This record gives sequence, structure tokens and C-alpha cells, in this order.
Amino acid sequence: MRIDLNADVGESLGAWRIGDDERLIPLLTSANVACGAHAGDPLTMERTVRIAARHDVAVGAHPGYPDLVGFGRRELDMAPDELEASIVHQVGGLLAFCRDAGVQLRHVKAHGALYNRAARDPVVAESIAKAVKRISPSLVLVGLAGSELVSAGRAAGLRVAEEAFADRAYESDGSLRSRRLPGAVLHDSDAAARQALTIVAEGSVTSHDGVRVSLRADTLCIHGDTTGAVEIAKAVRSALSAAGVEVLALEA
Amino acid sequence: MRIDLNADVGESLGAWRIGDDERLIPLLTSANVACGAHAGDPLTMERTVRIAARHDVAVGAHPGYPDLVGFGRRELDMAPDELEASIVHQVGGLLAFCRDAGVQLRHVKAHGALYNRAARDPVVAESIAKAVKRISPSLVLVGLAGSELVSAGRAAGLRVAEEAFADRAYESDGSLRSRRLPGAVLHDSDAAARQALTIVAEGSVTSHDGVRVSLRADTLCIHGDTTGAVEIAKAVRSALSAAGVEVLALEA
Amino acid sequence: MRIDLNADVGESLGAWRIGDDERLIPLLTSANVACGAHAGDPLTMERTVRIAARHDVAVGAHPGYPDLVGFGRRELDMAPDELEASIVHQVGGLLAFCRDAGVQLRHVKAHGALYNRAARDPVVAESIAKAVKRISPSLVLVGLAGSELVSAGRAAGLRVAEEAFADRAYESDGSLRSRRLPGAVLHDSDAAARQALTIVAEGSVTSHDGVRVSLRADTLCIHGDTTGAVEIAKAVRSALSAAGVEVLALEA
Amino acid sequence: MRIDLNADVGESLGAWRIGDDERLIPLLTSANVACGAHAGDPLTMERTVRIAARHDVAVGAHPGYPDLVGFGRRELDMAPDELEASIVHQVGGLLAFCRDAGVQLRHVKAHGALYNRAARDPVVAESIAKAVKRISPSLVLVGLAGSELVSAGRAAGLRVAEEAFADRAYESDGSLRSRRLPGAVLHDSDAAARQALTIVAEGSVTSHDGVRVSLRADTLCIHGDTTGAVEIAKAVRSALSAAGVEVLALEA
Repeated sequence: MRIDLNADVGESLGAWRIGDDERLIPLLTSANVACGAHAGDPLTMERTVRIAARHDVAVGAHPGYPDLVGFGRRELDMAPDELEASIVHQVGGLLAFCRDAGVQLRHVKAHGALYNRAARDPVVAESIAKAVKRISPSLVLVGLAGSELVSAGRAAGLRVAEEAFADRAYESDGSLRSRRLPGAVLHDSDAAARQALTIVAEGSVTSHDGVRVSLRADTLCIHGDTTGAVEIAKAVRSALSAAGVEVLALEA
Repeated sequence: MRIDLNADVGESLGAWRIGDDERLIPLLTSANVACGAHAGDPLTMERTVRIAARHDVAVGAHPGYPDLVGFGRRELDMAPDELEASIVHQVGGLLAFCRDAGVQLRHVKAHGALYNRAARDPVVAESIAKAVKRISPSLVLVGLAGSELVSAGRAAGLRVAEEAFADRAYESDGSLRSRRLPGAVLHDSDAAARQALTIVAEGSVTSHDGVRVSLRADTLCIHGDTTGAVEIAKAVRSALSAAGVEVLALEA
Repeated sequence: MRIDLNADVGESLGAWRIGDDERLIPLLTSANVACGAHAGDPLTMERTVRIAARHDVAVGAHPGYPDLVGFGRRELDMAPDELEASIVHQVGGLLAFCRDAGVQLRHVKAHGALYNRAARDPVVAESIAKAVKRISPSLVLVGLAGSELVSAGRAAGLRVAEEAFADRAYESDGSLRSRRLPGAVLHDSDAAARQALTIVAEGSVTSHDGVRVSLRADTLCIHGDTTGAVEIAKAVRSALSAAGVEVLALEA
Repeated sequence: MRIDLNADVGESLGAWRIGDDERLIPLLTSANVACGAHAGDPLTMERTVRIAARHDVAVGAHPGYPDLVGFGRRELDMAPDELEASIVHQVGGLLAFCRDAGVQLRHVKAHGALYNRAARDPVVAESIAKAVKRISPSLVLVGLAGSELVSAGRAAGLRVAEEAFADRAYESDGSLRSRRLPGAVLHDSDAAARQALTIVAEGSVTSHDGVRVSLRADTLCIHGDTTGAVEIAKAVRSALSAAGVEVLALEA
């Protein structure tokens, strides 16, 4: 048994800080670095890539809607050609910092409202898959397990990683519980660790109302911007190690 | 005798248009494409690179200060590490569109206030040279002939191209006449063509007050955003051809 | 018979120009001035208000989604409190230039994707109506004739002006023909003038496929960003004058 | 003896938080609210004004250079008309939230690099003074004690408040010690309280190298974005109260 452990990082902007990347990144196997559209200025991108490089953590791009004030959490109705060009641009900017730091860019994972839209909208999913392929056909596309984005990535001939969440509650239909509803986020590190282990070891998750749902995942996400992200990451790693699960980056 | 002919292009932003890139680019040998900081959104960058690719015109990056409303024409007091990271980021974004279009990125030329600052400020010049070298040591750095940027580029071991202006008036000390003064810009295509020819064939330029100034240039700039840019470019090319000057892109 | 004639103006951004406000504004009775979110920087706002003041044209605010690259033409999924605050902020910024120029702010008309969304979405319509009322209950709210925004404005106790378009084609159900379809925009000034006159004098419009549709309007819009806007405005004014229609700003 | 106690607040941006405004504002007599250019989105502006209104703290505008990534701490070479228009726009946006909350806007204090530039550059100082007067001649202009901005405000006929800093070290010539040098910021709340008291009660401050410098101040600034701002504000208020100094907002 093996699993990748990822988090969204580099989501600061100039003087504004979100997340404790120095402490969180060493606990990950994959770091999704914000690309300047929803968060992340050039210097933050550069520093974040270097932290990941120093700890030998796989670097991925984390493109989002171009909307700083909304932190990429508001849907923006971009035309397919606009969205494709935006993603090529965002990932290209990050790629320059990867080459500069001597590391390979390994994967691409969309952020926030773009991630959610791509999970259910095949047109948006296809735009993302096409953009990723244009940048490099050897990039791994990360998407919500079982989503339209996963299908679009496979149809485009990309390697795809299906993602599940250690610290988010699920509905009984396997979808993520909306952040607008109570109990959507697991703040307790033990609960997150238990959920992580169930997903990896049993291929299922227990929904917030007690239903067991099948779920297979190649990578587990920890939210870097929540309080206690570092503690959750530690708890998840400990639980996985104790159960004999190897925590390894996605295969290229 | 040979010379490169360049212009700043891709300086539109969404619905706002500046320059007639479709008609101007085919007349150039080098196109400096705006990178999203002072002008140019991702879709504009993509389209501009493709126009240049279609006409076999060498593509360069044209990074500027991050200031859309000021069009990169206002100095912004960025720290050296901020400036370096910004240039790596801007050029990296463009590079993605070059790879996508199957063309090589050939040169980097700073825009507006950044170009002018780098011509006289060795600290800013060094930041630009270092950023360009970090992206690729085989890129050509374009700078005002005889400027600090040219020196910084050489000191960094980069290939450097010295630039002169077909359509800008010069002062008797060899500096460019400030745009705030009358007669700073040559709108007459014949006058621009004559100045271009004098620079290339005689290695000198006549200042606005009649003084002959020595000047050697590897590349001549036509301003893409002035009315009549296309006519000026045509007149310059005709004059150079008639005089037996080869108009060729910078050597890699 | 009377009608107001409005256009969207002040939609330049720094060095980028859209529209010929100096020539168009004197032909209007109401000028909708962009507020910096989808277009318009502070200096453009200041200058546009002063042009309107000089020609005694009523000034209104033209708030849009905060999206310069998309020119406010892409829907952005803002929460109601975000949208309300954004509109209060945008209109407040313009109000400062109105007071400075010694003119009253008379009306508010949403831009682009926000206008279209508010025409059909009662939640967005209510947010706009509430924001306008918070700024001043004596402002006139302009909305598409017969739309949700008109209803929301009335429900909020605001004076409402229903708008029709001189230079846009209509569908047989009274909606505007989508800009993605051929024939959506009338570029012929005579056709626009005829449509304007039919709307005002007969209370109806002929759809692009020949159906007569009832339509009552307090104000007619000319698109300031189309080529020929000045010619269309002149033709519309002539046709209305010749038919004895008074062209007057909305009543306060 | 009386003094005003101010801090810069509302400097969050969407999901990014700076400062603990809910706890800090009640300890102030004047709150300088960021206006969206260097920090502060519309919803943050609205909420910050409401916190101040609830605690009966005087509201002022805190305009800065339009540079989110640089947090307004990098000089931007704006032309005088651009700067004036930007300030009118920024303050106008805040004014709308003040009217909406039923409070008066009382003062204007520039932020960061703009504050520092205006302290020494008479042209920038004059632009700020003119902009403030255009918005309302009854606004109080806050500037560094003894600076060019104070002179420009007086020359424009504005009421001026001279500012000193409780938590910043001074040089022996009365200028602020640069943030790039060690010891520029006082993190110890007792030290800040002692400095505040010396300024108010003795009209002087002891420089970082032990020289006593004369200094008169109408208002004392606490930096809202430093750790311990709330503790410093409490210590300063206690020390002032114990010494019989009245802490009151600036007189209108």
C-alpha cells in the first residue's frame, strides 16, 4: 500500500501570509504551489519551490481563477480559450522557478472554484486537460476521485491521480460536504488521520452521516490554510506509517 | 552590413487594443512580446507568439513593472530580489507559449520605465541580467546602446544586443530625448528611415539640435504603439534594403 | 413624448482607449461612467465626469464585476454581501469625482455580465437595488425593460428607468439577441435610428426575425465602444427630433 | 494634556488577514482605514468602518500607492494628476461606507511609501493636500511631525495633525529610524508606553542612540500589523491615563 500526501502551498501574497509552508512542506510528498492568479506573487513562488526542493518534495502547479480578492473561490465564467491560456500561463510561470531551482514540475492541481467546477463540468475539465497536455504530456493531472476532470485527463492521454481528502467531510453520495454546511472541515487531527487510513487501507470513507462510501485515491490532500494543518499532517503520516502504508510522491 | 529590426508587441489587454500586431509583426525580424505585468493577458500572449511563429519572426520577452494602469511607464521601487523574481516569472509565462507554439525564445528586452532605469542604474541592470541568466544563459539581452544594462549583461556573460531607435530623437550626449519634450518622437516615416540608415551605415545619429553622435547598434526599435508604426517599419525596411543592409534577427 | 439617451463611457484604462468620449458625450443626455472595476482608472473617471459636467449631461455610475482582463463581461460568482459592498465602493469612488466637479450623481446602471445577470437573477438584482439605496435613495436605477432588476428596484422603493437598445437586435420574446449570434449588433446608423424611433413612438420593436414586440422604455442605450457610436448617436437624435420627441435626461 | 491614538486598520485582503481589528480598534481614538489600493477590499472596508462606528472611534482614510503585492511600501512614480485622482478615488470609496454606517470621515493619513515620500517631497505633499481639500476642506490631514506634508497641508488651509510614533525608534535628527536597520521597531510594550508618555508629556523623544530630540505631536501611531499591537495599545493607554493625559480623537 502506498499513497501520496499533498497540500496547497505558496498561497501568501506579498505581506499577507497564509499557511506555514516552512513547517508543512517537509511533511508532504507533493506540494501544490499557487501560481499568482488566486494567490502567490513571484517571490513567494520562488521561495516555495525552493523549500520543496530543499526537502525533496515533489512540486506541482496549483492554478486558479484570476481573482485575488476572492482567493479563487468564486466561479469566473471564462471562455475555454481564455481558461486554457490562463493555465498555460500560470503553470509556465511556475515552471521557470522549478527549472531555476533544479527540480522537475511533476503535477498540476486546480484550485478552489476551478477544481470544483472541473469536477462536474466536462467543458472546463477538458480545457484544463488540454492546457496541461500543451505544457507537457508527462505531467500528472490531479483531480477529485471519480470526477469529470479525471475522465477528461484520461481521455487526453494524461497520467491522472485521483484525490481524496483527509480533513474534509464527505456526503453519502461520495461528494465533498459543502464548506457552507456545518462539519464540512475536520479540525481534529485524530479524526483526519483515521479518515486518511480508512481511505487508503479500506478504499472507503464514512460520510458525515455514517454511510460507508467506496473511494479509491492516489493522493490525499491536507488543507494548508487551516489552523492545525501541520498537526493534521503529522497525525496522518504517523497513522499511515503505523499501518505500514508507504507515503510516496506520485510516480512520474 | 546587417541589423535586426524589433518592436514591442502583444501590448493589448483583454478588450483594449494597442498596436496593429497582425500587420506590424511580419515587417520585423524580432518581436518583443509583453508578459502580463505592464500589458498583455495570457490569451494575447498566446496569439502574439503565434503570429510571430507564423511569420518566422524571432520571439523575445518584454517584461515590465507590474503596473497595468501605468502601462509600466512609472518607476516602481522594487527590491532586487522582487525584481529578479518578477522577471523570471514574466519570462517564464511567455516561454510556455513559445514552447507550445514550437518556437524558441530568443531575447529579453525590458519595457518602459524598467528599460530606462536599467540603462542608468547598475543595481537594476544587474537584477535584470541575473534574472535572464537564470532563465537561460543562451538568451540575448537587449539594452540601450552604451547603457549600464549592456555592461551588466556582458559582466554576467550573456550575449548582448545594443539597441538604437529609428523613431526617437536623440540628445547631443547620445541619450534619448525625453518624451516630455517636444520632438521626442519621429512621426514621419521618411525621417525615421533616414535615421535608421545613418545609424546602421554610418554608426552615428544626428541629434535633434544637429550634433552628430557616434552610436553602434545591433538592433533597431520601431515603436509599435505609435500611429503609423506599420508605415515607419515599411519605410525603414525599404531604406535599409535599398542600401544593401541585411535585415536579420539577432544571432543566437 | 420624451426619452433619455445614454451610453457607457469612461471605459478606457490608462494608456488603453475605448470609445471617443469627447465626441460622444455631448450627444447624450445621460453618461454611465465606468467605476474602476471592469474599466476606468481614477484619472479617466475624473476626466469623464468633467466632460459630462461641461456639456451638462447627467452623470450616472456604471459598476461592473471586478475583472479588468474580462472587461466585466464574464460572470463572477460573488456572494450577495461582496457584490453589495463592491457596488457601494465603486459608486462611492465616482461620487467623489462628481462632488469635485460640482455635479450630482443621477443614476446607476450595471455593466456587462452584471447587467445581464441582474436582468434574470432576483438575488443579484436585489443586491444591486440594496447597494444603490444604501448610497442614496434618490438615485435612479437603470435596468433592462421588464427585467428582474426593474422589479427589485421598485420593490426597494427606488425610482427605476427601463432601458431599451437602439443598436442591438431583439429576439421575438423581447430579450436581447446574444452577442454570440450573427446580427446581434446594429452597425447601420439608419437602422438604429429607425429602431429608436419605433421604440419611443410606438412602444414596440421589430425582432431580428420580423416579429413586433411590445416594449416601453425610459432610456435608450447607444454602445459607446462600437465603431460608429458617434454617427449612430447623431442619427438617433436627428430621427427623434424630426419626430418631435424630446431627448431629456431622466427626471430626478 | 491630550493626545489622539491612531492605528492603520482594515489592511486585510479577502482571505488574507493582517491585524486584529476587532480587538485593536476599541483601544484607539482614530482608525485609519485602508482604501483598496495597497490593502483592503470593499467588504473589509465596510466591516472595518462598522467596527469603528460601533466603538465610537473616529474614522479616517488611509490611501496608499496602488500596489497590492508591495503593500504600498514601494515608491511608485505617479504624476501629480494621477496621484491626486487616485487619492480622491480611494477616499471617495471609503466615504461611501462612512455615510452608509452613519459616521463622519474625519481625517486622511497616507500609507507606507506614500507617507514617507510626502514627508520629504513637497510636490507629492502638495498633491495629497490638494486631493484632501477637493474631497472636503474640513478633513484633518495627518502627517509626520515637522514634515513637508504638514507644511503643504497648512499652505492649503487644511487642519493638520502632526504625528509621532509610540513603537518606532527615532534618529537623533528627529527622523524615523529606517525599517531596514536593527532596532527600528519597538516590540516591547513598556518601552512603547514610555516613549508615548515622553512625547506627550515632555514634547520630546529619546533617539535610539540616546539623544533627546524635541517633538510635538497631536496624534500617536501604533502599528496595527505588528505582533503585540493590542498589548502595546493597552500599555500606551494605561501609561497615558496614569499620567493624566486625556486620549481623545482629533478635533474636527
